[in-house]
Amino acid sequence: MSNKRVYFFGDGKADGTGSMKGLLGGKGAGLAEMTNLGLPVPPGFTITTEVCTAYYEQGGQLPSGLEDEIRTAVGQMEALLGAKFGDPSNPLLVSVRSGAKFSMPGMMDTVLNLGLTDVVVKGLAEKSGDARFAYDSYRRLVAMFGDVVLGMKPESKHAVDPFEVAIANKKRSREVELDNQLDAQALSELADEYKGLIKQLTPHEFPQDPWAQLFEAVRAVFRSWQNPRAQAYRHLNGIPGDIGTAVNVQAMVFGNLGDGCATGVAFTRDPNDGVKRFFGEYLNNAQGEDVVAGIRTPQPINDSGGESGPTLQTEMPEVYKELDAIRLKLETHFKDMQDLEFTIQQGKLYLLQTRNGKRTARAAVKMAVDMVHEGLIDKPEAVMRVSPAQVDQLLHPMLDPAANRQVVAKGLPASPGAATGRVVFNSEEAEERGKKGERVILVRIETSPEDVSGMHYAQGILTSRGGMTSHAAVVARGMGRPCVVGCGELNIDYEAETFVARGNRIKHDDMVTIDGATGEVMLGEVATVQAGGSQEFDELMGWVDEIRTLKVRTNADTPADAQQARRFGAEGIGLCRTEHMFFLPDRINVMREMILSDGEAGRRAALARLEPMQRSDFEGLFEAMRGLPVTIRLLDPPLHEFLPRDEEEVEMVSKAIGRDPETIRARSQALHEFNPMLGLRGCRLGIVHPEIYEMQVRAILTAAVNVERAGIHVLPEIMIPLVSEAKELKVMVDMVHRVAQRVFEEQGRKVEYMVGTMIEIPRAALTADKIAEHAQFFSFGTNDLTQMAFGLSRDDAGRFLPQYVDDGLLEAEPFQVLDTTGVGLLVEMAAQKGRSVKPKLKLGICGEHGGEPKSVAFCHKIGLDYVSCSPFRVPVARLAAAQAKLQG
Amino acid sequence: MSNKRVYFFGDGKADGTGSMKGLLGGKGAGLAEMTNLGLPVPPGFTITTEVCTAYYEQGGQLPSGLEDEIRTAVGQMEALLGAKFGDPSNPLLVSVRSGAKFSMPGMMDTVLNLGLTDVVVKGLAEKSGDARFAYDSYRRLVAMFGDVVLGMKPESKHAVDPFEVAIANKKRSREVELDNQLDAQALSELADEYKGLIKQLTPHEFPQDPWAQLFEAVRAVFRSWQNPRAQAYRHLNGIPGDIGTAVNVQAMVFGNLGDGCATGVAFTRDPNDGVKRFFGEYLNNAQGEDVVAGIRTPQPINDSGGESGPTLQTEMPEVYKELDAIRLKLETHFKDMQDLEFTIQQGKLYLLQTRNGKRTARAAVKMAVDMVHEGLIDKPEAVMRVSPAQVDQLLHPMLDPAANRQVVAKGLPASPGAATGRVVFNSEEAEERGKKGERVILVRIETSPEDVSGMHYAQGILTSRGGMTSHAAVVARGMGRPCVVGCGELNIDYEAETFVARGNRIKHDDMVTIDGATGEVMLGEVATVQAGGSQEFDELMGWVDEIRTLKVRTNADTPADAQQARRFGAEGIGLCRTEHMFFLPDRINVMREMILSDGEAGRRAALARLEPMQRSDFEGLFEAMRGLPVTIRLLDPPLHEFLPRDEEEVEMVSKAIGRDPETIRARSQALHEFNPMLGLRGCRLGIVHPEIYEMQVRAILTAAVNVERAGIHVLPEIMIPLVSEAKELKVMVDMVHRVAQRVFEEQGRKVEYMVGTMIEIPRAALTADKIAEHAQFFSFGTNDLTQMAFGLSRDDAGRFLPQYVDDGLLEAEPFQVLDTTGVGLLVEMAAQKGRSVKPKLKLGICGEHGGEPKSVAFCHKIGLDYVSCSPFRVPVARLAAAQAKLQG
Repeated sequence: MSNKRVYFFGDGKADGTGSMKGLLGGKGAGLAEMTNLGLPVPPGFTITTEVCTAYYEQGGQLPSGLEDEIRTAVGQMEALLGAKFGDPSNPLLVSVRSGAKFSMPGMMDTVLNLGLTDVVVKGLAEKSGDARFAYDSYRRLVAMFGDVVLGMKPESKHAVDPFEVAIANKKRSREVELDNQLDAQALSELADEYKGLIKQLTPHEFPQDPWAQLFEAVRAVFRSWQNPRAQAYRHLNGIPGDIGTAVNVQAMVFGNLGDGCATGVAFTRDPNDGVKRFFGEYLNNAQGEDVVAGIRTPQPINDSGGESGPTLQTEMPEVYKELDAIRLKLETHFKDMQDLEFTIQQGKLYLLQTRNGKRTARAAVKMAVDMVHEGLIDKPEAVMRVSPAQVDQLLHPMLDPAANRQVVAKGLPASPGAATGRVVFNSEEAEERGKKGERVILVRIETSPEDVSGMHYAQGILTSRGGMTSHAAVVARGMGRPCVVGCGELNIDYEAETFVARGNRIKHDDMVTIDGATGEVMLGEVATVQAGGSQEFDELMGWVDEIRTLKVRTNADTPADAQQARRFGAEGIGLCRTEHMFFLPDRINVMREMILSDGEAGRRAALARLEPMQRSDFEGLFEAMRGLPVTIRLLDPPLHEFLPRDEEEVEMVSKAIGRDPETIRARSQALHEFNPMLGLRGCRLGIVHPEIYEMQVRAILTAAVNVERAGIHVLPEIMIPLVSEAKELKVMVDMVHRVAQRVFEEQGRKVEYMVGTMIEIPRAALTADKIAEHAQFFSFGTNDLTQMAFGLSRDDAGRFLPQYVDDGLLEAEPFQVLDTTGVGLLVEMAAQKGRSVKPKLKLGICGEHGGEPKSVAFCHKIGLDYVSCSPFRVPVARLAAAQAKLQG
Repeated sequence: MSNKRVYFFGDGKADGTGSMKGLLGGKGAGLAEMTNLGLPVPPGFTITTEVCTAYYEQGGQLPSGLEDEIRTAVGQMEALLGAKFGDPSNPLLVSVRSGAKFSMPGMMDTVLNLGLTDVVVKGLAEKSGDARFAYDSYRRLVAMFGDVVLGMKPESKHAVDPFEVAIANKKRSREVELDNQLDAQALSELADEYKGLIKQLTPHEFPQDPWAQLFEAVRAVFRSWQNPRAQAYRHLNGIPGDIGTAVNVQAMVFGNLGDGCATGVAFTRDPNDGVKRFFGEYLNNAQGEDVVAGIRTPQPINDSGGESGPTLQTEMPEVYKELDAIRLKLETHFKDMQDLEFTIQQGKLYLLQTRNGKRTARAAVKMAVDMVHEGLIDKPEAVMRVSPAQVDQLLHPMLDPAANRQVVAKGLPASPGAATGRVVFNSEEAEERGKKGERVILVRIETSPEDVSGMHYAQGILTSRGGMTSHAAVVARGMGRPCVVGCGELNIDYEAETFVARGNRIKHDDMVTIDGATGEVMLGEVATVQAGGSQEFDELMGWVDEIRTLKVRTNADTPADAQQARRFGAEGIGLCRTEHMFFLPDRINVMREMILSDGEAGRRAALARLEPMQRSDFEGLFEAMRGLPVTIRLLDPPLHEFLPRDEEEVEMVSKAIGRDPETIRARSQALHEFNPMLGLRGCRLGIVHPEIYEMQVRAILTAAVNVERAGIHVLPEIMIPLVSEAKELKVMVDMVHRVAQRVFEEQGRKVEYMVGTMIEIPRAALTADKIAEHAQFFSFGTNDLTQMAFGLSRDDAGRFLPQYVDDGLLEAEPFQVLDTTGVGLLVEMAAQKGRSVKPKLKLGICGEHGGEPKSVAFCHKIGLDYVSCSPFRVPVARLAAAQAKLQG
């Protein structure tokens, strides 16, 4: 732990800098940097994240001496501002806010207006000449202190906050509708009633010692690092749990001190489409929370979005000019799009926060490319600016422009993409049903941090209130969820679980579609089409391909898939699963005849009928890939997978192929396996029934000869699955070469081909040096390797794996993200052992991990030659490969 | 290849020595050593095994120059003996015999009497003055040359040898019964007829050039290294296929040259019971083959076995005295029991072979211990002299002395042990049915090398002809198969597939029992009891325990098993499988109620009823093991294993526990798994349903407290199964300590206990360093580890594993012998990683490999603390551990 625990900022000088995010948190580093840049930041100080760690290590105690350091720092603020903390005649008020290294918007706690007491509030009323303002500030402090510091905020959204009950009662008794219609007297009474509630509902009283308020608030912010919603947010976003939060104590400025006061949020470019346009919203006479919470719908800061009506630019042109200048300064300085919070107190502009702004996938790509052209950043930096998840999102489907749509409402297009699902009205339900794989649309009047988990599991989010910078909009953009906000046409009734829009009553569980790019809300499911890229996207992907060294292939079984993947930039087929071809309707019964044959002769007869079908499959693939390598895996699943499973199917098959049902049942029975995953499949079939593999090899190589004869170069790579012992592979490789020689003699023409193996059984990885002697390439089948290394059946593990991830026993489901600790160790061992024998052994991966960014990074790190994934993941894998290379 | 290819021996001097078995083969090294010892060995020479390798490398050619070297060596023999190869006036005859490093009795080929031609035979008749002898030798040579060199011997025993047909015809035409009743004229005719058969049935003629005979015979012996029965023998006995055989060319001596001639086989001690008694058999006026082939039943060499009638000692006392002196000299020299072949030619003794004799398990133990007492060998050597398989055999059951038995015949007690099975009359059937696990007794008039494989798969062997040194007797003793030979009371009819004995007609497939220790043949199945040890066995095992450092525990689930294992020397329980306890009739339905409960409360109620039952199980085990460690594995199998499988069972269970059948079916369905091996079992159950493991831990520790309270020390080791991730283990270990604290508080008494884990999932082995942080011990579950590392389900692999072993793809079934290359590598990695974190981490193995000698040796090598195996394998494991220690 470094010695310095409190970092001051104010009057153009700060102890810290913008690069100290780990120590000061994002907010603290931003405040320090802005202060150093000479921007108008209210003075204050940051208590480091190390103090948070110490706080937890000491069982919830502030480290000794810290209180004195805080008093000293507050003294510095007092000296700068000429006011005094707790002094009724000239009171300094402060805010206390959290701020971790990674942005966790709204997840942790904040207390405003600290320093007010029964005595000080009177002085403030006098000094400001605005008693209403003073008592409004006081009652807000007491309520926040109760909720945040004393834990009175109900955990469930369905429970009632006592302070809200009190203010509702007060409004009823004064016969007013809105909070800001309450007068100074009523607010003063409310502050007293709030203090009474604290006394009644907790063992504490609201402290009349301002210092006690401050220290308690600091503790509360540290505590909030571990509150359930913060933990859930970190879990969803992969933020470590042990880095802690900093605490920012800052002089209060007031956007709610009458006319000439305002508060707002702005982005230096449009976070929605990425266009270089100053974009923001503000509220007159309000505190900052009001913008984010979406309680009132704010006004735009300018008319760049085409909106009409008053803007900051028209209402306070001088302040706007100052803000616009600051915007350019910040972007030049930080070289990234900034998300600002500002407050205007009686015509004076203050900046309260700057940070890299969240953005949509489309905006991320455009900004990254534009900034390269503007000379702000270089290409590698641009490539790092777009996440693989954003690329994935860009390739998500959008609404088919030609499809019929019944639009029932239109709101703000807060986060693009189309989403269809059943209407649900609360986050718990969205989470529960989403986890089961159901598609739901979460419909809320507004959202708050408690909704984040439900938003994650929803297909899309729709709110009736709030603007483009409201909680719902910001979070949805960050998550890549389609989102429509501020859709005032909606009349939502939580009780009845319905909403009414343009005369339509939409009920819980009805199907709706939202379009986050237009703000439209539609009835039913609307057809989608594949999103196209953009010019910027193509440019970025060009840089990606210049940078990466790891090649990207695709898993494809049909020419159509192969062509799609080529369009996405695939550099070959890494896995063609031949068994899928046998499941086609015209083949499955021939396959069944083969399996039901009584001897090798019968099997060979059926295989002879399958061979021309296989051959034409391969011809199609070779033609589609024109000169790129095509890895074809020989038959993998156990034969019983092709046989009928129930009586009805048995009858059908019996009729179709003319074998009596008893024979079919008996053969199914005989082939039954207790653990088919560990049974007679893959090359074991090739050893026991060599005629099947021989037919496949003939079909592959005859197809290759035919296609080459037509002038198209082919690169077939024949892959033997499920090898566990080098001698197995040797027998199979000998067979391939024998069949090849025969085909080439018959055809009077040769083609080049390779023979290699899947490494998908732990023993194969462990003995990879021996196996490499017979293999020209390895392809890691990390699906099966994960199943066997973990002792987990993918078909069965659903019963307990989710609990394992929820309980933190596993970081991620190992079938989604490659388990680098265990399974990855096997892959790395096998790669090293294989290359120890054949330094140029070609190495790839064809499990589904091949399209998952963290797994791709691992594959790059251990020196594989390529990854292979489904066609739609190819661009994701390309970007992940480039980023892995850059992170070196 | 060393330069020297031909090693001469003769006249008290040999080029080689007894230690050169690899180069000269066992027989060649023995001949050299005996020559050097000054024993009467006919001169000759050995062509090395390296020449055999060269022969195969050159595609079946003798290396160039070798023929000249052979001519030179024959010249040396001629000089010593004053006779000349191919010289009619004074002919030298030679034999050509195989001899590999490891004894493969009767598996390869031999040709005798080489050097005889139409011309030479006349000279021999004249010189020996015995025309009958000369023509008998000649017709034997021609037949052997046809059979061995020209491949006329039919492959199948059921086909007819043309030479046998010819001699049978000759005997019929001369109206005699036995071969030796044919006169010189008849034998001369026979030799001509044999030559005619060769000309008629092969493209060759019998060569009249003695050198051509010799070179062809040498080639034939090399060829015989790869004949099918030699390959099968090597496969069964684990002899490598690439070491080749040597060829021994030696001057013929004749035991069939009239009176004063004999040939015999002797053992320096009794190979059956190990007693130090000169033991052997001989035939007057015969060639060596006649004794081994069992064609005539020979006489004993002395009356030490209590037999009456003429013996070598009474018939030729001088020769016997000389032989007895040689016997003592050989044993003192070789320090092991020797198996000798001798021939007496006209009163002169010659030794033709000496080698370490095969012996029964009982004899092996007795000789080893006796030789230590005699000062011949030391204790470690004695421990190496007994194989683990022999110890296993010693613990095989013997006939219950109290059981009724209906004895129908009595033969020679050739190899001890009791065997019961169905009567079969040919080896093919014995092999086929034995492979399927059926118990059969192979009944033959006599056996020959073609029968070896059938003998291996039979429970026991019964022959009607042949002595204690006949093929059947020697091979059965080596294999440890119970065997009765020379049972002249049997009248075997191969055609009818019956044998008659004392008036009983026993048919094919009838059940019989043989007792190889008494020679009795009994009808039906006779009850057996466990064999007791002997005083020598106990003494030997005492030395074993002094030597070994690897401890041996047992796998036991009941107090009875535990006590049995302690008697066999177990030093603790390495694996108690608690699930077996739940399958007991009084518990299975309570277990089912638990599984069928709708919630945790219901499960806890059923578990509360199981707890006292579990507790008393553990009390029994702790009492039985008094102070020795007891490793208890918590519940391992998936819950569906406890539920009924078919409709009938569902009904039964429904009635027994009062749940409707639909519920039971539905729950079974819900718990169904595609790959139960990789499903919800082991500690995954402990995580998902902690109440089950909590109950088990309570039961274990309460039992421990109770037993300690009764004054018996306990050492419980609680073992968590199926861990794949360190955090899983941590959760389980925390649970154990929490429950323990509660039990100790309730009971007012503490006991020491340990918590550890199975390492049975590849990922657990790969991350063993992390797992070791939470474990006090590792126990390698090599059954499951093999299944997962190999991707092989033990329940399903039977469909192809035998083919894998037969084809040589695998050396052994990996569920029988630990696969040290792959699975063993995981075990070794895990041991190292575990000890890198905890240097004193206790390591054991509890898979079934723990009782398999090669696997035990591996466990010793990699530094495990103990192996654990089934009670009856404990002594086997103890010996294997000691031998592993001695072999370093």
